[in-house]
Amino acid sequence: MPANVLYGQAGGVTAVINASAHGVIQGVRHHRDHFGRIYAAREGIIGALREDLVDLEREDAASLDALRHTPGGAFGACRYDLGPLESHKHQYERLMEVFAAHDIGYFFYNGGGGSMVTAEKVHVAAQQMGYPLTVMGIPKTIDNDLAGTDTSPGFGSAAKYVATSVREAALDVASMAESSTKVFIMEVMGRHAGWLAAAGGLAQGRPDDAPQIVLFAERAFHRRAFMDRVREIVERVGYCVVVASEGLRDADGQFLSVAESSHVEDWIQLGGVAPNLAEMVRRDLDLKVHWALPDYLQRAAAHIGSATDVEQAAAVGERAVELAVAGENGRMPVIRRESDEPYEWSVDSVDLARIADVETTVPEAFIREDGYHITEAARRYLAPLIRGEARPPFINGLPDYARLGMFPVERRLPPYEL
Amino acid sequence: MPANVLYGQAGGVTAVINASAHGVIQGVRHHRDHFGRIYAAREGIIGALREDLVDLEREDAASLDALRHTPGGAFGACRYDLGPLESHKHQYERLMEVFAAHDIGYFFYNGGGGSMVTAEKVHVAAQQMGYPLTVMGIPKTIDNDLAGTDTSPGFGSAAKYVATSVREAALDVASMAESSTKVFIMEVMGRHAGWLAAAGGLAQGRPDDAPQIVLFAERAFHRRAFMDRVREIVERVGYCVVVASEGLRDADGQFLSVAESSHVEDWIQLGGVAPNLAEMVRRDLDLKVHWALPDYLQRAAAHIGSATDVEQAAAVGERAVELAVAGENGRMPVIRRESDEPYEWSVDSVDLARIADVETTVPEAFIREDGYHITEAARRYLAPLIRGEARPPFINGLPDYARLGMFPVERRLPPYEL
Repeated sequence: MPANVLYGQAGGVTAVINASAHGVIQGVRHHRDHFGRIYAAREGIIGALREDLVDLEREDAASLDALRHTPGGAFGACRYDLGPLESHKHQYERLMEVFAAHDIGYFFYNGGGGSMVTAEKVHVAAQQMGYPLTVMGIPKTIDNDLAGTDTSPGFGSAAKYVATSVREAALDVASMAESSTKVFIMEVMGRHAGWLAAAGGLAQGRPDDAPQIVLFAERAFHRRAFMDRVREIVERVGYCVVVASEGLRDADGQFLSVAESSHVEDWIQLGGVAPNLAEMVRRDLDLKVHWALPDYLQRAAAHIGSATDVEQAAAVGERAVELAVAGENGRMPVIRRESDEPYEWSVDSVDLARIADVETTVPEAFIREDGYHITEAARRYLAPLIRGEARPPFINGLPDYARLGMFPVERRLPPYEL
Repeated sequence: MPANVLYGQAGGVTAVINASAHGVIQGVRHHRDHFGRIYAAREGIIGALREDLVDLEREDAASLDALRHTPGGAFGACRYDLGPLESHKHQYERLMEVFAAHDIGYFFYNGGGGSMVTAEKVHVAAQQMGYPLTVMGIPKTIDNDLAGTDTSPGFGSAAKYVATSVREAALDVASMAESSTKVFIMEVMGRHAGWLAAAGGLAQGRPDDAPQIVLFAERAFHRRAFMDRVREIVERVGYCVVVASEGLRDADGQFLSVAESSHVEDWIQLGGVAPNLAEMVRRDLDLKVHWALPDYLQRAAAHIGSATDVEQAAAVGERAVELAVAGENGRMPVIRRESDEPYEWSVDSVDLARIADVETTVPEAFIREDGYHITEAARRYLAPLIRGEARPPFINGLPDYARLGMFPVERRLPPYEL
C-alpha cells in the first residue's frame, strides 16, 4: 500500500503559500496510485510533533480549490525550530513515531530559509534513524531572500501590493501638496534585505514620479544627505514620496526602528522606521509629513495578487510532488529565470542543505549609485514578477476566502509536550 | 454666448473624487449648447484666486475617461478657507474678477463639509456683488460624516479597502497565532466619526471571525475593559484582531493618538492610536502584538474601489450639472437610499447652507450595546456601499492612472498673493 503524505507550513505566511498547498494537492491527485492519503500538520512541525493532523481527503473539492486564492497559512504556520539531532534526539524520535503511526512516507515542508533548516534536519534524522521518508522543501517568503531560486513565491504578490499602494498614495499626496502634506513615507517589510523597498521603486513611471526616494536595508542611512535630497525634491517637484525598508540602519549599524522608551509612563517610542523618519523630516525641514505602515496587509493582499506569483507558487508545490514520484529526496524546487523579456521561467531544484538558512540581499547592480533608487537592471528583474492580476472571487463586496473543514486525524499516540 | 464652467476639488481626496469630475465633464458634454468651455481650477479655490486654471477642452477623451478610475485629486485639492465676506471682501472681489475675466458662469466645487462652506460663501458673495454665478457643491469624503446625504462618495471605496484588508491580515494572524502574533491592531481614518472602523466590522463573517473588536471614535476607551475583552478573545479564539478609529479618545476626552515627546533627543512618540494600543496590550497582557496604519493608502485604493461608490460619485457630478441646467443655484446633489435590499438609491439635492460644516457620526443603533462591534442595522446600511469591484486597467502589473496634459488657461489678470 502506498505511503501517506504530510504537508506543513512554516514561517511568515504569504498571499500565495496556500497556492503551493494547492499545487501539492494537485500533484498528489495526479499520482493517486503512488500515494496514500494526504494530511496536513497544523502549525507545521508543531502539529507533526503533537500528532495534530488534519485529513485533506475529507475536504470538499471547492474548498481545496479556493486555497489557490486564499492568503495566510490555511493549516497554521509556526515559528518553531527543532534542536540539533545530537542533543534533541527525543524530538526526532517523536516525529518518526508520529510518521510511523500514520504511515507517512512523504513530508512536504513549505517555508523560508529557517524552515528549510527544519526540513533538512528531518531529512537527515530519518536517514540516520532508518525511517523511510522522502522530504521535500517548498520555497516561500515575501522577503525574496531565499538562496538558490530566482525569486521566492510570495514576494511577487507583496511587491505588486507595495508598488500599487505607493503609486496610489502618491497621487493623493501630489494632489494636496500645495496646501497640505509634502512628504509621505511608507515603510515596507524586509528586516535584512530591501527587496520590497526595491519593488516600491517600480511605481515610478517617469523620472520625477513617486517614489522619488527608496531606502534600502543594504545602505546605511545618512540623515543630512537624506534631508538634502528630500528638500531638493520638494522644492523641484512639490512633494516627496519615500519607500523605506524596515531594516534601515544608520552608519553605526543601528536599526532606525529601534524602540526607545521615554520617561513618560505608558508612552514609548514603538519603533517603526516610517514614524521615526517622519519625525526627523519635521524637525530638520519643518515640512508636513504623513507615513504609512501596512505591516501584515502587504503579505496577505491576495485581492491584488500577482498572477505570475500564484502560478509559480502552485508550480513549486506541484513539482515537489513530481520530484518525490521520481525518487528524489531532500530537495527543494526553485524558480529559474530563462529570460527577462519576454519573461520565461522554469522549475529546477536544489539540495535542501545548499539553501537552508542562506540569505540573499539586493545586489549592488540593482541599487542606483547614489543609493536612493533602483536601477534599470532591477526593473528588468522585478517587473515580470508583479505581472498579471490574480483575483479572488468576491461576495457582497468582499473577497471570499477558503474555509476548510479541518477534519482531525484520529490520534494514535500519547500526547507530547513541546 | 453661453458662460464657461469652472470645476474645483478641495479637502482630503478620495479614490473616486475624479469620478465626480468625470461626471461633471460628462454632464457638460450632454449639454454642449448650454455651456461654454469647461475649465478646472488648480488646487480648488486657491487656483480660482490665483487665476491658475487649466483647460479641459484641450485634454484628449481617453485621459478624461481615465479620471473615472484614478484616485487622488487630478486637479489638486486644497485645504484653504476663505475668510468671512465682511472682513475679506478683497478675496471675493478677486474671485469675481477671475470669473469675469474668463466668462465663468458656473462654479462646481467638489469637497467635504468644510469645502461646502467655501462654496456657500462664494454663492452668497456672488449674489451680494451682483455677479451672475451658479454655484453647485459636489459631495466627497471618506469620513462619511457629511450631512444631508445617505453616504458620501469616497467612503464606499475606503470602506471596501478597510474591510478587505482586515479580512486578509486576519487570515495571516490566525495562521501564526499559535507561535507568534496574537493581537493585531489596524488603525483607520476618521478623526471625529467611526464610520471606517464600522466598515472594518463588515469583515466579520461569523461570530468569532476577525475583527473581534471595533473601537469607535464615538465611544470612550476604557483600558481595563478593553484588555479583559482582548484576553478573553485570545484565550477562546486563539488571536484577536482590533480595528480602531484614529479619533479614539479616553474617558477624559483625550485622543489616544496624542503626541507625547520623550526626553531622548530625536525620538518621540509620534501618535497613532494603533502603536499606542499595541504598547498597552504588550504591557498589560504580555502578548505579541502587530499593528498597521495604512494612512493615505486607504483613501487612494482605487485598485479595489467600490463599483457602487464610483457610480454614485459620477452620478452626483453629473446631477450637479443637470441642476445648473435646470436653473437651480446654491445646491448640492446627495444620495438618497430607497431600500437596503435590494439596494436602491436615487440622487436628490439639498441647499448648500443646510449641510455646510455639519458632521454626522455613527448612530447609536449601529454600535453594539457593549460598544465593541457593529449591529445588524449597521451591516444593512454598510453592506451595499462596498458592493461591486471597480478596477482600473493594469499595465505591466500596475494600475494605469490618468495623466492629464493640464493645459494652462492664459492669464488675463495681475498675480494675486494668497
